Amino acid sequence: MFDGPVAELIDQLGRLPGIGPKSAQRIAFFIIQNPSYRPDELAQALATIRDRIVFCQRCGMLTTDPLCSICADSGRENSVLCVVEEPKDVIAIERTREFRGRYHVLGGSLSPMDGIGPEQLRISELVGRIQDEGVSEVIIATDPNLEGEATASYLSRALARPDLIVSRLASGLPVGGDLEYADEVTLGRAFAGRRSI
Amino acid sequence: MFDGPVAELIDQLGRLPGIGPKSAQRIAFFIIQNPSYRPDELAQALATIRDRIVFCQRCGMLTTDPLCSICADSGRENSVLCVVEEPKDVIAIERTREFRGRYHVLGGSLSPMDGIGPEQLRISELVGRIQDEGVSEVIIATDPNLEGEATASYLSRALARPDLIVSRLASGLPVGGDLEYADEVTLGRAFAGRRSI
Repeated sequence: MFDGPVAELIDQLGRLPGIGPKSAQRIAFFIIQNPSYRPDELAQALATIRDRIVFCQRCGMLTTDPLCSICADSGRENSVLCVVEEPKDVIAIERTREFRGRYHVLGGSLSPMDGIGPEQLRISELVGRIQDEGVSEVIIATDPNLEGEATASYLSRALARPDLIVSRLASGLPVGGDLEYADEVTLGRAFAGRRSI
Repeated sequence: MFDGPVAELIDQLGRLPGIGPKSAQRIAFFIIQNPSYRPDELAQALATIRDRIVFCQRCGMLTTDPLCSICADSGRENSVLCVVEEPKDVIAIERTREFRGRYHVLGGSLSPMDGIGPEQLRISELVGRIQDEGVSEVIIATDPNLEGEATASYLSRALARPDLIVSRLASGLPVGGDLEYADEVTLGRAFAGRRSI
């Protein structure tokens, strides 16, 4: 129905995750018809993002400098290293303000079906950092799903050393959730991890 | 948390309709981390869209040429004119393949609260087209909401002429819907507009 540029814009918007054909069309019309919206600002941000963002040389986080702001911060504890799958996990943990150590981003999780083995993740860099930076505890914060658990299990064996504590984030009932809606695996974990009060 | 460019991209994505902060962050990470995604293509589409799209001189539809493809199509009936609020309504009606006449896009609906009166809509152009193009029926397809009904009511009075049929799209139960979930206004309309079978 539509002539070239509108169809092209709808098609391009529809390639973004979570944006279906209807949303893409609604967004395209908004862009075209809303005089106060400046499409060139998003265009500029998109055109430059890949050139301006690099991975932190040390932890693998996204950054504009060789070292990310956390690695460059001398106030963080060197002795505790939190291992996550993706840069967005760092954001999520930072938001809790509970953790003052450093991070290591693996760049994914073990998934043999997708051809992702230990060599495809930043595990050798992790082993190097544990030796070089005087790390005494590694907190494995991979996702609580099949791949994340497999990765945590692999790491706990690969990193095993008498002088290194390797821990895993607790699984259990989400705060504010409803017990009857918890799946049985989560509920089982909540029992296994129960604490005296 | 984030350095300039990522925060800027998330902020810009969040200005699009229907994209909240979480979606904007998820999309931004997808754009940054997915090597097969080409952000420059969307950037290009966004940067050029406003320059490449104009309103059809005759009907007000979005187009790249002075006349849109429907106005330029000599196979459409000149005698029936369908009046809609927005270009996207033309798309929706074309999708039904039920209508072979021409369109007139008002550019909105009457909304005194927002300062939109008859002069802000393309109503004088509509009156001119009815005279010039030999129109015998006008189908008012404004939205079935307060502003759309007010606009339809205004148009039916403004266009009243003995030799012109002015009709309004039927209101009633949506096909495939469930009677018990219909709101009372829609259900009332469905009764009022009942047809013998």
